[in-house]
Amino acid sequence: MTARNLFLLPGDGIGPEAMGEVRKIIAYMNEAMNAGFVTDEGLVGGSAYDAHGAAISEGDMQKALAADAVLFGAVGGPKWDDVPYEVRPEAGLLRLRKDLELFANLRPAICYPALANASSLKPELVEGLDILIIRELTGGVYFGEPKTITDLGNGQKRAIDTQVYDTYEIERISAVAFEMARTRQNRVCSMEKRNVMKSGVLWNQVVTATHKDKYSDVKLEHMLADAGGMQLVRAPKQFDVIVTDNLFGDMLSDVAAMLTGSLGMLPSASLGAPDAKTGKRKALYEPVHGSAPDIAGQGIANPIAMIASFAMCLRYSFNLVKEADNLEKAIANVLDKGIRTGDIMAEGAKKVGTTEMGDAILAEF
Amino acid sequence: MTARNLFLLPGDGIGPEAMGEVRKIIAYMNEAMNAGFVTDEGLVGGSAYDAHGAAISEGDMQKALAADAVLFGAVGGPKWDDVPYEVRPEAGLLRLRKDLELFANLRPAICYPALANASSLKPELVEGLDILIIRELTGGVYFGEPKTITDLGNGQKRAIDTQVYDTYEIERISAVAFEMARTRQNRVCSMEKRNVMKSGVLWNQVVTATHKDKYSDVKLEHMLADAGGMQLVRAPKQFDVIVTDNLFGDMLSDVAAMLTGSLGMLPSASLGAPDAKTGKRKALYEPVHGSAPDIAGQGIANPIAMIASFAMCLRYSFNLVKEADNLEKAIANVLDKGIRTGDIMAEGAKKVGTTEMGDAILAEF
Ligand SMILES: CC(C)[C@H](C(=O)O)[C@@H](O)C(=O)O
Ligand SMILES: CC(C)[C@H](C(=O)O)[C@@H](O)C(=O)O
Repeated sequence: MTARNLFLLPGDGIGPEAMGEVRKIIAYMNEAMNAGFVTDEGLVGGSAYDAHGAAISEGDMQKALAADAVLFGAVGGPKWDDVPYEVRPEAGLLRLRKDLELFANLRPAICYPALANASSLKPELVEGLDILIIRELTGGVYFGEPKTITDLGNGQKRAIDTQVYDTYEIERISAVAFEMARTRQNRVCSMEKRNVMKSGVLWNQVVTATHKDKYSDVKLEHMLADAGGMQLVRAPKQFDVIVTDNLFGDMLSDVAAMLTGSLGMLPSASLGAPDAKTGKRKALYEPVHGSAPDIAGQGIANPIAMIASFAMCLRYSFNLVKEADNLEKAIANVLDKGIRTGDIMAEGAKKVGTTEMGDAILAEF
Repeated sequence: MTARNLFLLPGDGIGPEAMGEVRKIIAYMNEAMNAGFVTDEGLVGGSAYDAHGAAISEGDMQKALAADAVLFGAVGGPKWDDVPYEVRPEAGLLRLRKDLELFANLRPAICYPALANASSLKPELVEGLDILIIRELTGGVYFGEPKTITDLGNGQKRAIDTQVYDTYEIERISAVAFEMARTRQNRVCSMEKRNVMKSGVLWNQVVTATHKDKYSDVKLEHMLADAGGMQLVRAPKQFDVIVTDNLFGDMLSDVAAMLTGSLGMLPSASLGAPDAKTGKRKALYEPVHGSAPDIAGQGIANPIAMIASFAMCLRYSFNLVKEADNLEKAIANVLDKGIRTGDIMAEGAKKVGTTEMGDAILAEF
């Protein structure tokens, strides 16, 4: 069996603590299942800045490019609020996405049954919720040029950001959405602002054409992104797969995540195109939550999102579908048993720290 | 007394029906209170396209520019889904905003107590909710150039939209936010994506400087726009005034509106700068909801948002504060009495149509 190469980037804040629990699962899988994972580890975000003066070093970028999959914790914290724009913690994450060409960001918004009451929405609106948001991740306003601040004199500055989308970028992300829909409820809702943005007009046209060409068996709907935000709040269960651009995806996936009441538990996968020869996709897996500097280092962070991200890694990078299912089931079981970290504490539940939560999941796995 | 000039643009869909109820209130105020309103009326959106081939005619633009205030209904509908981009219904609204320089969009998100149960959020999270979203309305990605779709050959097209913000644009909108905050809970939360967008960096700097310069008595907080969307869903009552750019404002104000459960009831005001000589601001008032083509012409549309928009007009364009208060109280009273249009129907309430709702509010006024 060839080695399965994982590159770990725990990052800042609670990232390292959460990653520690994944490391236990990897060790267990190597020992008990002969899984053959080989891990290496690097720095990203503020910790990379402290060590190298960059949000990720060239050496670590090379390792990320060479790995079968990257596991990413979280970046940022007040300590680095005033570092220069080009080396801010987020720059490390953005460079990874761009240089690994991880154009397809998969963000499941599911509501763990045991947590339906934690949602701010009425429980009946979120019980059983299972949306998959497919966010374009290497284009749009995140990377378009010009992206500048210019001094105009007279005390005036002008800031410019540019949203750019080419046909092929929209084609490939909508193909991912349609493929994913076929494994689910076979429905895709595409969101843009075609009434205001030219990129929305092109987005709408290309999604429509891709659908007609190759995926006419999938049900396709179009929605303006602002109306989409409203509908997510009003009746989230109407959606199956949502496909949208980088910036709208950022906003809408966060709103959707918060709706579930399971924010601290939600994973994400960022995938590249399949390699022409090997069929392998570059990939990065990260929790949806941030680095939570306020609770970092206390051993109380919830590692579930990081562990669930590793489950996505098993599924999408290594085709270990059964193992992924089992790991997800282990998480659900632990929640059903009333074992909780502080962020999801409920009356009558048993409050545990980061490592106990990791141990409990491992015991169910 | 000089005349108070109102220019009415009912628009498409349910716009004309809703405007009809405002017309009754205007007539009443002229008769009973000698208010001196003089009204003229024009076409906008699809109805203007049908009549003139443009989303608003030059003549009507001139009238809008000359009026003390514009009352706007709603635009759009499936009939005009395929008209050319430049003359689509929304173009009329966007041109009005731009040519009248209505840079400050005020969107109150309030929860009418009688409707707290209509929210998809748990009632305790929205009862008493009263947020004011201040959205920049004449800049950003809505109007920045280039805004193009180019044919690259090879079947590839490239769409470009440009987000542009100058210092003065951010200064004046943040000043509005701070001024408004002083009349409320004295708290402003500014939202942008400074971790990704240069316009977010400048936005953050200018809001901070404006605050320090002239409004340091107001409590100022900064939040990333995606986190802001989450916080709106999680705990909306934490906010007093939110100030944000054109596109984020579009998304966030719609999410906030939907949270209240009172979407069909929410008004908005779009204001220009005070004239150097007269101190008067150009202004346009419109409901947050759309043209609802599916129920247009049936006499069942809810006119409350349009009437509440007229109340904002009384307050901001004519300084008729007592009258504005009374009109808003009339709306709340009618809701308390259990009189409802179909969209906000509840068990045990009395279901009425558009004109009965207008009459009921007028009777309480
Ligand atoms: C950290 C930040 C750059 C990032 C983004 O805006 O994409 C984050 O919000 C996310 O959604 O992954
Ligand atoms: C109709 C449309 C152009 C408009 C906008 O995007 O501004 C609407 O959504 C709004 O919020 O007023």
